[in-house]
Amino acid sequence: MEIPRGTIRSERIVSRALEGNLPGDPPVRELLLYLPPGYGQGSERYPVAWCLSGFTGRGRMLLNDNAWTPGLGDRMDLLLSKGLARPMILALPDCFTHLGGSQYVNSPALGNYEDHLVQELVPFVDSRYRTLADREHRGVIGKSSGGYGALMMGMRHPEVFGAAVCHSGDILFEQCYGRDFAPTLRTIQKGGGVAAWLSKFRASPQKRHADIAALNIVAMSAAYSPNVKAPPAYCDLPFDLETGELILEVWERWLEWDPLRIVDRFAPNLKRLRLLFLDCGLEDEFYLELGARALVKRLKALGVRHEYEEFEDGHMNTSYRMDVSLPKLSHALGR
Amino acid sequence: MEIPRGTIRSERIVSRALEGNLPGDPPVRELLLYLPPGYGQGSERYPVAWCLSGFTGRGRMLLNDNAWTPGLGDRMDLLLSKGLARPMILALPDCFTHLGGSQYVNSPALGNYEDHLVQELVPFVDSRYRTLADREHRGVIGKSSGGYGALMMGMRHPEVFGAAVCHSGDILFEQCYGRDFAPTLRTIQKGGGVAAWLSKFRASPQKRHADIAALNIVAMSAAYSPNVKAPPAYCDLPFDLETGELILEVWERWLEWDPLRIVDRFAPNLKRLRLLFLDCGLEDEFYLELGARALVKRLKALGVRHEYEEFEDGHMNTSYRMDVSLPKLSHALGR
Amino acid sequence: MEIPRGTIRSERIVSRALEGNLPGDPPVRELLLYLPPGYGQGSERYPVAWCLSGFTGRGRMLLNDNAWTPGLGDRMDLLLSKGLARPMILALPDCFTHLGGSQYVNSPALGNYEDHLVQELVPFVDSRYRTLADREHRGVIGKSSGGYGALMMGMRHPEVFGAAVCHSGDILFEQCYGRDFAPTLRTIQKGGGVAAWLSKFRASPQKRHADIAALNIVAMSAAYSPNVKAPPAYCDLPFDLETGELILEVWERWLEWDPLRIVDRFAPNLKRLRLLFLDCGLEDEFYLELGARALVKRLKALGVRHEYEEFEDGHMNTSYRMDVSLPKLSHALGR
Amino acid sequence: MEIPRGTIRSERIVSRALEGNLPGDPPVRELLLYLPPGYGQGSERYPVAWCLSGFTGRGRMLLNDNAWTPGLGDRMDLLLSKGLARPMILALPDCFTHLGGSQYVNSPALGNYEDHLVQELVPFVDSRYRTLADREHRGVIGKSSGGYGALMMGMRHPEVFGAAVCHSGDILFEQCYGRDFAPTLRTIQKGGGVAAWLSKFRASPQKRHADIAALNIVAMSAAYSPNVKAPPAYCDLPFDLETGELILEVWERWLEWDPLRIVDRFAPNLKRLRLLFLDCGLEDEFYLELGARALVKRLKALGVRHEYEEFEDGHMNTSYRMDVSLPKLSHALGR
Repeated sequence: MEIPRGTIRSERIVSRALEGNLPGDPPVRELLLYLPPGYGQGSERYPVAWCLSGFTGRGRMLLNDNAWTPGLGDRMDLLLSKGLARPMILALPDCFTHLGGSQYVNSPALGNYEDHLVQELVPFVDSRYRTLADREHRGVIGKSSGGYGALMMGMRHPEVFGAAVCHSGDILFEQCYGRDFAPTLRTIQKGGGVAAWLSKFRASPQKRHADIAALNIVAMSAAYSPNVKAPPAYCDLPFDLETGELILEVWERWLEWDPLRIVDRFAPNLKRLRLLFLDCGLEDEFYLELGARALVKRLKALGVRHEYEEFEDGHMNTSYRMDVSLPKLSHALGR
Repeated sequence: MEIPRGTIRSERIVSRALEGNLPGDPPVRELLLYLPPGYGQGSERYPVAWCLSGFTGRGRMLLNDNAWTPGLGDRMDLLLSKGLARPMILALPDCFTHLGGSQYVNSPALGNYEDHLVQELVPFVDSRYRTLADREHRGVIGKSSGGYGALMMGMRHPEVFGAAVCHSGDILFEQCYGRDFAPTLRTIQKGGGVAAWLSKFRASPQKRHADIAALNIVAMSAAYSPNVKAPPAYCDLPFDLETGELILEVWERWLEWDPLRIVDRFAPNLKRLRLLFLDCGLEDEFYLELGARALVKRLKALGVRHEYEEFEDGHMNTSYRMDVSLPKLSHALGR
Repeated sequence: MEIPRGTIRSERIVSRALEGNLPGDPPVRELLLYLPPGYGQGSERYPVAWCLSGFTGRGRMLLNDNAWTPGLGDRMDLLLSKGLARPMILALPDCFTHLGGSQYVNSPALGNYEDHLVQELVPFVDSRYRTLADREHRGVIGKSSGGYGALMMGMRHPEVFGAAVCHSGDILFEQCYGRDFAPTLRTIQKGGGVAAWLSKFRASPQKRHADIAALNIVAMSAAYSPNVKAPPAYCDLPFDLETGELILEVWERWLEWDPLRIVDRFAPNLKRLRLLFLDCGLEDEFYLELGARALVKRLKALGVRHEYEEFEDGHMNTSYRMDVSLPKLSHALGR
Repeated sequence: MEIPRGTIRSERIVSRALEGNLPGDPPVRELLLYLPPGYGQGSERYPVAWCLSGFTGRGRMLLNDNAWTPGLGDRMDLLLSKGLARPMILALPDCFTHLGGSQYVNSPALGNYEDHLVQELVPFVDSRYRTLADREHRGVIGKSSGGYGALMMGMRHPEVFGAAVCHSGDILFEQCYGRDFAPTLRTIQKGGGVAAWLSKFRASPQKRHADIAALNIVAMSAAYSPNVKAPPAYCDLPFDLETGELILEVWERWLEWDPLRIVDRFAPNLKRLRLLFLDCGLEDEFYLELGARALVKRLKALGVRHEYEEFEDGHMNTSYRMDVSLPKLSHALGR
């Protein structure tokens, strides 16, 4: 009854891309790898799935153990033992920042996380592990901000990734972010402005929901509308901190990062993907099913092959959805 | 220790303005009047404050008795007995509709409630009661949708109203309404579309919060973007019912009704007011303090005299704020 | 299409039973009466239903108008016009206290509200109005604390009331009150003790949910475990204010007022009722369906005739349940 | 700037105590160990702190990584590097069951987890690792159900454990469990009874809060009032599943496990502890500060030396409290 277990490896990467980043986040990062059962005994080469964590996450958290939710490695072991998925390596990077996340983009306010992933980590893994080192056998998967990252990688780096899985990803920014602007305004105002609030947030052992929601908006600002002259978060907020009115020129900078806005431009790249899978829960607290539907409508109009599923659940604790996506991804990459 | 009590009168008005309204709401309406203590004994004439109720409200509800919250008549009695306010008549119209409210505007989807108020009710009261029948002695006050109505009356009917009080009024539509678009979409979709959902809502003895929130958005659509060819709500929603994307041409019709958008045009009228008082709670569930601040900023820029207060509370059960506004209004009208 | 309307009368009662009550609540009370359509034109005599309001309520509130919920008089008009109910007088007493309610019992901490109702108000109405002045034609109905009151009247005063309706009434005290002891402890401790907290509560214009919940427990203590030497609430709490441990001798005093505890003793009285109707919602926030079921089980064992219904709803805003009970009551009293 | 890192070891234990347990939970368990920095290089012997996880937890979860909350190993590394704690081994057992936990007691409904811990795991670690293998150098620490376990170990096994830390532990059962009886009743009734509900719960990928709360009550029943003839949960619930009334003989069995009930009997054992530390948050969702206070009051009366702290927080995500307790424990055991 024992099932074969894969192996977890931890690598320490000194990143050039992140060196000297403005907020002073560590350029040395842990990269975790899941090697499928049998990796150690043979000489076979494997596809690689890059697994991007959501906001406030980093690779290690994907391995967290919970009562009825296996860590990612255990989940993969189970899928393999049942014959549902094909063996592949999972690579779990750490793109965490002082603001809780990077959206996997290059930003002067945070660091060059897109470069870090595409130019440093991918070659590193291909050089150290027995990978099938081409786009056809390399995929990217994530949820929430990780789903956003996976979608962007699929759009912007077709030479690197041949398949993308976007679970409950950030799309249609006015819906998924817009509703948090006013609460963020209140949280930051009560906290005495961005700097004072951020400093209190860091000092507090308990992170309240309202603060995490505000941090999310600040982190998105650092990713989408950085301003290197505005410490400590180095960004422009897309709304007036007193009246909540949209600041249109900042908001326009955000929209340039909304997958829905740029999908037309990147459609040729998306058409090259072996798999483009999206899903979202119908009770998603960020109403991300709306962005997913809007994007899917556009994908149809553009003739981009894709799969889309909706499910009866919210945004949190839905890693069980990878029981659907990991098999698909492993087959798409395993051909 | 007994305090002098005013009198409540109920009038039955057959409205020409509401006759034949599209949804078939009753054209016969109750108008309630509060006459101050002493009205019956003398021949004095009094100023009139028109009191507009919020969404789902009508005049009678303003008289509702609650444990620690007196009805409007009892509140006025108390203010008078303490010498805080000066005697005035309060007029409480019923502008309720099948969708829960009218925003006090003329709309082919609902009826001509603006006309009903300005052209029918005001003259009616002036002809039957001992009022000081001029703009200097006629004010308008309300909360939430009633605050919106009061503000609009102050902007659009300076010949009728000489003072306006807007408690927690609908301003800066993207903030106060925008956040309810996505939840409304879900509520209506689960309900099987606007017609089926509305029909279930009416049949259900218990009105759930989510349904009231959706009804609010539908009612605003009927007020701001009516479409007489779209029964049963006769309106265009400002968002796509599948993807939640804004429908810009409909949204633009809404914005034409946002006080913030039109304040510049109506500034000359506002300058004629003897009193323009606004307030909002800092925990308002609709974030209406943002719209209030944005408007106040504009009023300052335009040189419109006004008073503005923020208080530590939310949106609901704040009729105690009239302990601040009714005295001000009574003095402004009593001069 | 107009339906015949009953009349609302307001009487001012100077109560001997309440005179000199310890907390100094007013002994002069308003009694509201609903007289059915036609009362004024004839000489017919009518049954009377005494309508007891819930915690924080008084008679006038039963007449409050709400968007989709008619006041009690309008509701009765509708039931009569549809032929569902038979004409009766409704009597709406005011048994409000400085702690929000009296449970309709005699208590040295609050006043003799049971006597007030049974010995003063009932004879008053019978002497002034054209009632059928005997137990067969006199019923009592209420919800929550009012349902408790109705049930207790049915048990303790069979010579006065011939029918009782208990909507979502306080039964099985450990369930309906016990869960609020710990939150009450916290609320009172944060408020600086009973006296300081009560004083702040009264001064605050907005009454928070947690404070109302605590007030409820304090009011129940004043009703069930009064202590005239403990101002300002004159009661013993049934739990230790530091550790939350039950104080058994106080708790035992409470249980002497739990209908479930005393139903056996009063079963002979209950058997004399023409109607004993109980109901409760399956989502009742106080879990009152449990007490109702426990009592019903006991009524069955005792051979007491009764009707019991459960419905899909919570505790609040369920006056539509009177569309079920008022017709039953009117027929039971009208025979 | 790098801090010295301890090592995590995983051991696989075949338990005789758990073999053949009634629900069929695995008798093979993972035991995780944290070895302090330097363990590998020397021959020093170390104290051992046994770390008990809360309901739904097992040892591995204590190592979970979270954004601003280090896993237990990282936390210990930090405390050591700052000189706040002294080196010790941490042992993290897995006492998870099909109902989410075992309370670390022997129960025919679950298995002999107390024996497993005391008779199997403790000797195992002492035989394989360089421990200081006596009670003076062996402590036990946990939160919630783990805090309960630590307290019970301190009371019942003074020969094994010389120090105990109880964070937010289950004490004063009527408060911490009683309030969940009625919600549990509803959850189980809606689920079609214990067996059907449990089966649905297991099949559902998303575990809802209400189900976890009900599972907790069922698991406590299996620990405190087992009934081997009542599959699948093998327990008696302490309340009637229809009326919510307490079933006193079952409830009495529970109370025999309430630390508050049995502390007098075990006071001599507690007096032998080098450290007895308790704490609780003042916003604890289970109101566990009440039980803590009640116990502390009793400890004082009994003359048992202890430390007690209250802090401003709730029940969840409070592992930062170990920054207070681990240093104390390490010094108590290190003497």
